Amino acid sequence: MLPQWVIEKKRDGQPLSAGDIRSFIQDYAQGRIPDYQMAALAMAIYFRGMSFEEVAALTDAMMRSGALVDTSAISLPKVDKHSTGGIGDKVSLVLAPLVACCDVAVPMLSGRGLGITGGTLDKLESIPGYRTRLGVPEFLRILGACGCSIMGQTADLVPADRKLYALRDVTGTVPSIPLISASIMSKKLAEGADALVLDVKWGRGAFMKSVADARELARTMVEIGRRMNRGMTAVLTDMNQPLGRTAGNALEIREAVEALKGNGPDDLMTLTMELAGHMLVLARRAPSLGEAGDLLRRQLRSGAAYERFCRMVRLHGGDTKVLENTDRLPAARSKQDLPSPAAGCVADVDAERIGRACVALGAGRARVEDAVDPAVGVSGLVKAGERIDRGQPLLTLHANDPAKLEEARRLLEGAFRVAEMPEPPLPLIVEVIR
Amino acid sequence: MLPQWVIEKKRDGQPLSAGDIRSFIQDYAQGRIPDYQMAALAMAIYFRGMSFEEVAALTDAMMRSGALVDTSAISLPKVDKHSTGGIGDKVSLVLAPLVACCDVAVPMLSGRGLGITGGTLDKLESIPGYRTRLGVPEFLRILGACGCSIMGQTADLVPADRKLYALRDVTGTVPSIPLISASIMSKKLAEGADALVLDVKWGRGAFMKSVADARELARTMVEIGRRMNRGMTAVLTDMNQPLGRTAGNALEIREAVEALKGNGPDDLMTLTMELAGHMLVLARRAPSLGEAGDLLRRQLRSGAAYERFCRMVRLHGGDTKVLENTDRLPAARSKQDLPSPAAGCVADVDAERIGRACVALGAGRARVEDAVDPAVGVSGLVKAGERIDRGQPLLTLHANDPAKLEEARRLLEGAFRVAEMPEPPLPLIVEVIR
Repeated sequence: MLPQWVIEKKRDGQPLSAGDIRSFIQDYAQGRIPDYQMAALAMAIYFRGMSFEEVAALTDAMMRSGALVDTSAISLPKVDKHSTGGIGDKVSLVLAPLVACCDVAVPMLSGRGLGITGGTLDKLESIPGYRTRLGVPEFLRILGACGCSIMGQTADLVPADRKLYALRDVTGTVPSIPLISASIMSKKLAEGADALVLDVKWGRGAFMKSVADARELARTMVEIGRRMNRGMTAVLTDMNQPLGRTAGNALEIREAVEALKGNGPDDLMTLTMELAGHMLVLARRAPSLGEAGDLLRRQLRSGAAYERFCRMVRLHGGDTKVLENTDRLPAARSKQDLPSPAAGCVADVDAERIGRACVALGAGRARVEDAVDPAVGVSGLVKAGERIDRGQPLLTLHANDPAKLEEARRLLEGAFRVAEMPEPPLPLIVEVIR
Repeated sequence: MLPQWVIEKKRDGQPLSAGDIRSFIQDYAQGRIPDYQMAALAMAIYFRGMSFEEVAALTDAMMRSGALVDTSAISLPKVDKHSTGGIGDKVSLVLAPLVACCDVAVPMLSGRGLGITGGTLDKLESIPGYRTRLGVPEFLRILGACGCSIMGQTADLVPADRKLYALRDVTGTVPSIPLISASIMSKKLAEGADALVLDVKWGRGAFMKSVADARELARTMVEIGRRMNRGMTAVLTDMNQPLGRTAGNALEIREAVEALKGNGPDDLMTLTMELAGHMLVLARRAPSLGEAGDLLRRQLRSGAAYERFCRMVRLHGGDTKVLENTDRLPAARSKQDLPSPAAGCVADVDAERIGRACVALGAGRARVEDAVDPAVGVSGLVKAGERIDRGQPLLTLHANDPAKLEEARRLLEGAFRVAEMPEPPLPLIVEVIR
C-alpha cells in the first residue's frame, strides 16, 4: 500500500488497519516515508480523529520503533505516574520515593520543561551532580537498588515519537488527542511498567483548556493502556492555578523536600497522596485508597520517603548536602515581593501568566535548545481562597537579571484577582477514570 | 509570521490574509519553507476550504513565483481555452486555429496525459517533428505569425505550481477545489491571455465526478479570473462518455483534421463551436454566440481553419504531409473490433473504462516518466443513443502488443450498455457560468 493511499483513507474518514499504521510508522521511523507524507497524515488525523483501535495500533507501532526497557529482572510490581504537565508540578519528586517505600518499583522516564510547563529533569538538575542521562542498564541498577529512578528518555527508546513530535511542532498538528495519547503512551509503555497512573490536567496552565478535552485524552490513554494489558487509572486535576507555592527549578526542589517530610502545601500533599494511592491500589499493595493513604502517611512521618529520595539522588550522582540544607541550593541574586494592590480574598491565580513569568525569568525554555537557570522562579504564591491584606506579597520573584525581572513583572499584571467576598474554589481533583 | 502559525490559522478555520499566503508561497517556491509544512497546509486547506479572496491570493502568489509571458506586443485580443481533461478530448486542436482565423490570438500552454485523461501535447507529438518545448520568444513569434501556438509549460513559468502539484500528488491533497483552481488559474494567467474560456467536465471520465463539484470548481475559477481582470466564461460539459469517436494520440489527430474540415463527429463539433463561440464573444469579435457560430462555420467551410492548423504545425517543425494524408500518421500493427453482444440502443459508454483501456494499450501513462505510444488507442466508438446490431463493432482497438491488447479487452468488459429501448442521453452542455 502506497503511503498516499493511507493518507487518503484517513482523509476520507475510513478506518486505518493496524497493518497500515504499523508499516507507515516503521517506514517513517526508518526514513523511507518522508516528513511531508507524515505531516499530511498527521493533519488528516487532526481533522478525522482516530478510533481506540487505531490509537492503540499507533502507540504500539511507535513503542516498537526502538528499544524497550526490560524490567523483568525486578520482581516488585512496577508502576509509573505521568502528568500532562503544568506550573509548579513537583509531584513526581515526592511520589516516586514515597511509593518506592511501599515495595513498588517506580521506573520513571521524565521530560524537560517546554513552553510554560516545567520539567522534572530540569528540577532534578538543580541538585549539583544529578545525572539525568543514564543508559538503561544503570537505570535498572538504580531501580533495583532503591525502588525508583528518574531519568531522561534515551536515544534508542521510541525514536519514532521524537521524530514525529518535532514534526508536529512545526506543522500545526500538536493539539490532536490521538497523537498526544500515542506520544505519551508509547513512551510510558516502553518503560516496562505493569501499571500507570495518569495525572491529566485541565485549565489555563495545562495543555487541555477544558475538562471535556482532558477527559477525552484521559479516556483515550486509559483505553490504550488497557488494550496493552496495563493496569490504568487516570485522575483529572485542576491546573488553572499553579500547584504548591513555588515554580522554578531549585525552588521546587526545596518545596518537594518539605513535602517529603510531610510539610508540603495542602494541594501538593493532596494530589501526591491521591496519585500515589492509586499506584498502590494498582500494585495491589493496598485494597483501597483509604488504606493506601495510611500506608503512605507512615512513610512520610517516619522519614522513610525523604531518606529514599536522598538515596535515589546519591545513586544518580547528586549532592545530598543541598537536600539536608536547602539554603545551599542554587539561589537567585535578587528577590522581590509582588504586593497585593487590595485587601480581600484571592479569587484567581492565573497559572498561565505565572508560567510565562517564570519562562521570562529564565526558569523555562522557549525553544528546546535553550538552557534554564536553576535558581530563578517564584515562591510564596498565595492560593485561591486565601485572605490577603493590601501590600502583603502575592508572590516573591527570584531573579538573576534586572531586565528579565521587569519583563516578568509585566507578564504578571492581571495574574491575580482579589475579590471582596470569598468565591468557591475549583476542585483540585475533578474525576477518576479507570 | 512563522509558517506553523499560518498552518494553525487555516487549521482553525480562520481566514488567511493575502500577505500570509504570499509569503508562504514565495518561501515555499524558494525552498525556505520545507515540503512538510506545505503538505500540512495543503491538508488543512483540503478540510477547511478557502474563500474566493484566499484562492485569488493563492493564485496570484503562485503565478508570480516565476516568469510571466508578455503578450503585449501582440495587438489582437488574446483568448485561451482550458479543459479540466477527459477521454477523447481533441477540442484544442480544432479550436485554436479556428479561433485564430477570426483575428483572435490563442496562446495555449497545454499538458500531457496523466492517468486516464489524454493530453494535447501527446497528441501533437504524434505528428513527426512537432516541437512542444519552445522558449517563450519562439512561442510569441509563432503566435504573432499564425495567431495560435500550442506548446508545453516552460520551466520558468509558475515553478510553485510544479512543486506543489508534485507534493499534492503524494500527500492525498489533490482533490481540493481551491488547490485545483489555483493550480489551473495560475498557469493560465501566466500565459498573458486577456480572457479565458473554461471547459469544466463532470462524470466518470472527468476529475469531477458530480455536476455540483464541477460547478463549484467552475465558479471558483471564474471568480479568480474576474478578480484578476480577465474576461471569463466557464461551460460545464459531460464526460461520462468519451468525446468524439476516437481516443489515442494519432487517432485523435486524424479525427481533429476531419473536424477542421467541418466533418467531425457531432459532439466534438458542437462542443468546439460552443467554446470557440464564447471566445469570440469575450474577444468582442461577435456580439452573440449565434453570430459567432456563423463566423466560425465560414472558417471551417472555406478551409481556412484547416490551413491555419497546418501553418501552426509547420511553424512548430511538424511534418504536414501526415495531415494531408492521415494514413501516414503512426499506425498500430493490429486492429481488432469489439463486437456488440446484443442488438438494441447504446445506453451507456463508460469513459473511464475506455480511458483505462487506452492507458493499457500504451496511449496514456500511469506515471509522469512513462513514454506513450502515438499509434495505439480506439476508434469507431459508438455513441450513447445510437442503434446497434448484434455483432456490429462497438469500437476498434489499435494495438502494438498482444498482451496489452488482451489487458485492454479485459478492461473494456462492461464499458458498453446496450438497452432494448432508447434512453434519453445526458446533455453534452450542462450550463454556462459567467
